[in-house]
Amino acid sequence: MILVNGRAAETVNALDRGLAYGDGVFRTLRTHSGQPLWWADHYAKLASDCKALALDCPDGALLQAEVYQVADVGQGVVKIMLTRGAAARGYAPSMDGECTRIVLSTPLPPHARSDAPPDVTVRWCTLHLARQPRLAGIKHLNRLENVLARAEWDDPAIFEGILCDDSGRVVSGVMSNLFWVRQGELFTPDLSNCGVAGVARARLLRAAARLGIRSHIGQFRSDAILAADEVMICNSVIGVRRVARLDDMTWSPAGWTATLNKALYEDLD
Amino acid sequence: MILVNGRAAETVNALDRGLAYGDGVFRTLRTHSGQPLWWADHYAKLASDCKALALDCPDGALLQAEVYQVADVGQGVVKIMLTRGAAARGYAPSMDGECTRIVLSTPLPPHARSDAPPDVTVRWCTLHLARQPRLAGIKHLNRLENVLARAEWDDPAIFEGILCDDSGRVVSGVMSNLFWVRQGELFTPDLSNCGVAGVARARLLRAAARLGIRSHIGQFRSDAILAADEVMICNSVIGVRRVARLDDMTWSPAGWTATLNKALYEDLD
Repeated sequence: MILVNGRAAETVNALDRGLAYGDGVFRTLRTHSGQPLWWADHYAKLASDCKALALDCPDGALLQAEVYQVADVGQGVVKIMLTRGAAARGYAPSMDGECTRIVLSTPLPPHARSDAPPDVTVRWCTLHLARQPRLAGIKHLNRLENVLARAEWDDPAIFEGILCDDSGRVVSGVMSNLFWVRQGELFTPDLSNCGVAGVARARLLRAAARLGIRSHIGQFRSDAILAADEVMICNSVIGVRRVARLDDMTWSPAGWTATLNKALYEDLD
Repeated sequence: MILVNGRAAETVNALDRGLAYGDGVFRTLRTHSGQPLWWADHYAKLASDCKALALDCPDGALLQAEVYQVADVGQGVVKIMLTRGAAARGYAPSMDGECTRIVLSTPLPPHARSDAPPDVTVRWCTLHLARQPRLAGIKHLNRLENVLARAEWDDPAIFEGILCDDSGRVVSGVMSNLFWVRQGELFTPDLSNCGVAGVARARLLRAAARLGIRSHIGQFRSDAILAADEVMICNSVIGVRRVARLDDMTWSPAGWTATLNKALYEDLD
C-alpha cells in the first residue's frame, strides 16, 4: 500500500522535485504487528535531515499514523520519502512549500527474517565515495553512488559492499553502517564527509555506552578493518550482522555481534 | 503537456527509481515552432549519459516524435527525463528493464527570450562541488548540490552562481557552463571530476574551432577568471551570455560573446 500526502495512490506528480533533482530525504524502517520499530529515532533523524535541506518536516503524529495505516499485519518494512514537492522547472527551491510525503510498505526481505543466516560475506567496492560535507550523513534521495556501487556485483553469496572515500578512508556499506571491535573497544567511521548516519548506527553507539563498551568514531583506513577481532554491519532492517568474510579475509565469531544486536532492540531511551 | 512512456499523464509510478534514488538522466532543450534545437547533439548526449549509468536509451526517432508532440507552437523548452523505471526496494539495479521516459514542455522562461538583457551578473557560491569521476559530466538526476547552491541567493538581479570544487578549482555555473577569453584564446574548466558537460558547451568548443579560436580545457583557479578579458556562461536554453559582473569585479564588453553566441546557432555538423 502507498499513501501520497495521506491518500492511497500509486503515483506521484511528474513535476515533483524528488524526481527532478532528488530533492528530498527518506527512511526505511521495520514494522512488527503494524507498529514501527524505533519510531522516535526514525522521526528525529527525518526531522534533522529535513532541516539540513530546509524542508518542512511533516508532523510526527501524522506520519506515524500513516505508517500504521500502510504497515503489514505481521513483520514488514515501511519506507517514507519526503520531497520538496512539485514545482516549475529550475533549481531554485521554494522555501515555503509543503513536502510531498510518500509512505509505503514492502514485505520483509528474506535476508531480514529471523531465520536468515546471522553471518554475511562482504566485498570491497571499487567506487570511491565523493566527499561532500554539506550532504554527508543525510539520507537524501541522491543515491546514484549507492546504485553504481551495488551494481559492482551480482553474486547472491555477497551480501554487502564496503565503501571508501576518495582519500582511501573507510566509510560504510552500500546499504549499512560499519562497525568493528578490537581489543574490546568499538570502532566506526566518522561520517562528516560522506555516508549516511543511520538510526541503527546511532542506537548501536548508545547500546555500546550502556554496555560499558568504549567506542571510537574516527577516520580509519582499510587496514583497521583487517586488524579487527570482529566486524559488523547494521541497518534498521537487518539489525547487526557479523561479517564472516571480506574478500579473502575471514573471521571467527568473537561474540560481540550477538551481544550488540540484542542490545540494539532494548529500550535505549 | 507531459508524456510518460508515450502517454499523456500527469504522474509517474511512486516506486520509480528516478524518485527513489535519482537513478536516471535528463536533458533540457529549446524548441522553435515545435522543432527541437540541436536535436542530434542532445540525443547523442542522452545516449552517452545513459550508457554511463547502464540505462537503455530509448530510440532516437521515438523520443524525437515525443518532443514534437509536447512542444509548444512558438518558442519553448522541453525537458526529457529517463529513469531506470519502477522496481522493488533496494539499490541493486535491474540491467534489463526499460527506461521510464518522461517528456514535458514548459514555456520559454523570461530570461531566455530574445529581448532579455544579454549581460548577466553572477556570484561565487560557497558550496564546493564534490569530486566524483564516476558521475562527472553526466546530467543525472542527483542534483542536490545544484539545489543547495541555487538556494544561496534570492536576489533577482543575480542570474547565476559560479561553483568551485573542494580543491578550489572553478567548475561551472549552477545551471550553465563557464567560458572565458584571454588574449584571444578561449578557456573552460575540465569536467572530469565534477560538473555537467552540457550540449551548449560542446557546441561552443566546436564553434570556436570553426572560427579559428584556440581553446583550452583545463584546471583553473578563480584568479584565471578574474584575469579574463571576457567571461561567459552558456546552456541550451539561454545560449551564450556575457558576465558583466562577478561580485565586485566588472568587465566591459570585448565582443567575444556576440560572435560566439551567433556561431553557436549555426550548423556545426
